[in-house]
Amino acid sequence: MNPSILRWGILGPAGIARKNWQAIRLSGNGTLVAVASRDAARARAFIAECQAAVPFETAPRALGSYEELIAAPDVDAIYIPLPTGVREEWIMRAAEAGKHVISEKPCAVNATELRRMLDTCARHRVQFMDGVMFRHNARLARMRAMLDDGESVGALRRITSSFTFAAPPEFFGSNIRTLGALEPFGCLGDLGWYCLQISLWAAGWRLPHTVTGRLHAVHGDVPTEFSGELLFDGGLSAGFDCSFLLHNQQWANFAGTKGSLRVDDFALPFAGTETAFERRGVEFRRQGCDFRFEPRVRRITVAEHSHGHETAQEACQFRHFAAQVLSGALDQSWPAIALQTQQVMDACLASARAGGQPITLG
Amino acid sequence: MNPSILRWGILGPAGIARKNWQAIRLSGNGTLVAVASRDAARARAFIAECQAAVPFETAPRALGSYEELIAAPDVDAIYIPLPTGVREEWIMRAAEAGKHVISEKPCAVNATELRRMLDTCARHRVQFMDGVMFRHNARLARMRAMLDDGESVGALRRITSSFTFAAPPEFFGSNIRTLGALEPFGCLGDLGWYCLQISLWAAGWRLPHTVTGRLHAVHGDVPTEFSGELLFDGGLSAGFDCSFLLHNQQWANFAGTKGSLRVDDFALPFAGTETAFERRGVEFRRQGCDFRFEPRVRRITVAEHSHGHETAQEACQFRHFAAQVLSGALDQSWPAIALQTQQVMDACLASARAGGQPITLG
Repeated sequence: MNPSILRWGILGPAGIARKNWQAIRLSGNGTLVAVASRDAARARAFIAECQAAVPFETAPRALGSYEELIAAPDVDAIYIPLPTGVREEWIMRAAEAGKHVISEKPCAVNATELRRMLDTCARHRVQFMDGVMFRHNARLARMRAMLDDGESVGALRRITSSFTFAAPPEFFGSNIRTLGALEPFGCLGDLGWYCLQISLWAAGWRLPHTVTGRLHAVHGDVPTEFSGELLFDGGLSAGFDCSFLLHNQQWANFAGTKGSLRVDDFALPFAGTETAFERRGVEFRRQGCDFRFEPRVRRITVAEHSHGHETAQEACQFRHFAAQVLSGALDQSWPAIALQTQQVMDACLASARAGGQPITLG
Repeated sequence: MNPSILRWGILGPAGIARKNWQAIRLSGNGTLVAVASRDAARARAFIAECQAAVPFETAPRALGSYEELIAAPDVDAIYIPLPTGVREEWIMRAAEAGKHVISEKPCAVNATELRRMLDTCARHRVQFMDGVMFRHNARLARMRAMLDDGESVGALRRITSSFTFAAPPEFFGSNIRTLGALEPFGCLGDLGWYCLQISLWAAGWRLPHTVTGRLHAVHGDVPTEFSGELLFDGGLSAGFDCSFLLHNQQWANFAGTKGSLRVDDFALPFAGTETAFERRGVEFRRQGCDFRFEPRVRRITVAEHSHGHETAQEACQFRHFAAQVLSGALDQSWPAIALQTQQVMDACLASARAGGQPITLG
């Protein structure tokens, strides 16, 4: 193992894996060794497409089974964008084979399943991380400092966030995110996970004592529009909504006793990375950003503006993960964050299934 | 009665009445005849202060009792900024005396009490209106058109609003808005009333089928920080929060299937009208406003920018009211709006008192 380069494999050539192909390419401390699909031709096609757009020096190998990737001796870490409903087995097997893992979100079908995964990762001393790129955006440290300095925002008391996109009609019933067996949380897992996690981040990774949830639209049994609220000790609260029916929004507002901080693009770039990828000129999350302050209302608005591929938050995510693994130590906070997010998400859905009854958390 | 000028009285020289003194002055179709206080000296001092800043041609009379104002034959309409807990008696007596009424919000201690008031107003054929000035801002018609045109926002599905201000420590326990006997709804009545009403406005004045509420802070028994959610037929939902603890915010976001509309100053000017009044150069709500469209995210942001005292929303409110009364007909929608807002507010507080249990309406 080259002590300065982490060797990646991708398990499942999902659409989102194209974005993270490039993230690995831009990370600077990782290389992509292999892509596995149950269908070798699909892996080959995925590699051909991605390699043409964002080439690695040596093209990754196409593998025709997940087992081959997990057994590959030249792979240190695996990115697993498989659907949530079938992900557990492969995370477990990857961990048992000593591979470090980045799992797409939502991590599991429930916290019990996620605990099994995390226990297995811990037992085999492999790093686990969920696929939430915004935590790796450099601006987050500045936002954290503003929330903590006692002056910019004062005491934080109310978080509001919204992450939505309007899916086309064919999405419903064909995209895995609307199929209960594969993605039982629907928009709550796909988008709400981010709202929950930015709320938990702002709250300082405290578990709320009570949560509520509400289903506003479903496809079959799968949430397609959802809202919820988290109540924390000390009077902090967080409302959020997420939807496959509403136009692009991804804003978060942090309101405190002395001011507020608003970010209008907290999760993903609106410019579809997949489309852009096809144009071979990926518009990636840009790290440079403005913090604009309106003194009259004491509101700080964060807006990304500059381009910088190496500093894209996805690249930062894979870079941070690789650096941690290459250091030889595990970061215990990453699995803890994933588990906390999952617990809160589970409870939000349980509340919604019970007609909005408040659910108390341990 | 001069068919083109409505003759006003103010019942109770509350702080907010200074703002509406000027609104009457700027309305163009109203004049202020008298101000009544239980203490004649207080009425005189209020008149002296306001007359020096914003003079009427003839200074209003100072009256030493509410009864005198209600009996005054040269008064057509009364603005009643008395505290909610003691307002019913005087609204009833004003209506019985044939005076038209603008009541400060929240209108009543509950919908049953408000129904009594409204029945009395209807029986005596007097106009009733609650003191919500944003409904009279000219930009609202343009916002309505955007919500209804099917393209700017598409189908409206999610409303989020926040109205907060950080009161100084001495506010709590001294200001009537924190005293349960006078203002039992606290911040929910003072600020949440606006959030509820802009949500109901956006929803087309439909009653939600279910609401929830949550107390995040109280002073004694009085809400000082609150959040709630309204669920409407067809999947439309509205989340809101209001607070005496959070810094100035008064934003509303209307999210639809094709875009979103955001207004950052939906209720009141931040520049304190009272302070400005003292400077004799009142910074009033400005009617001219920008509608800025961001094509990438299809978000329209509404921002006030131009000054224009006669077009201030408070002046519009008193002008609209006077024009209606002078027309000889009553607008039945105004009391209906007040009653709907009160019903929803009552239910939100009932939910919060029951620990967030959903409350079904109608």
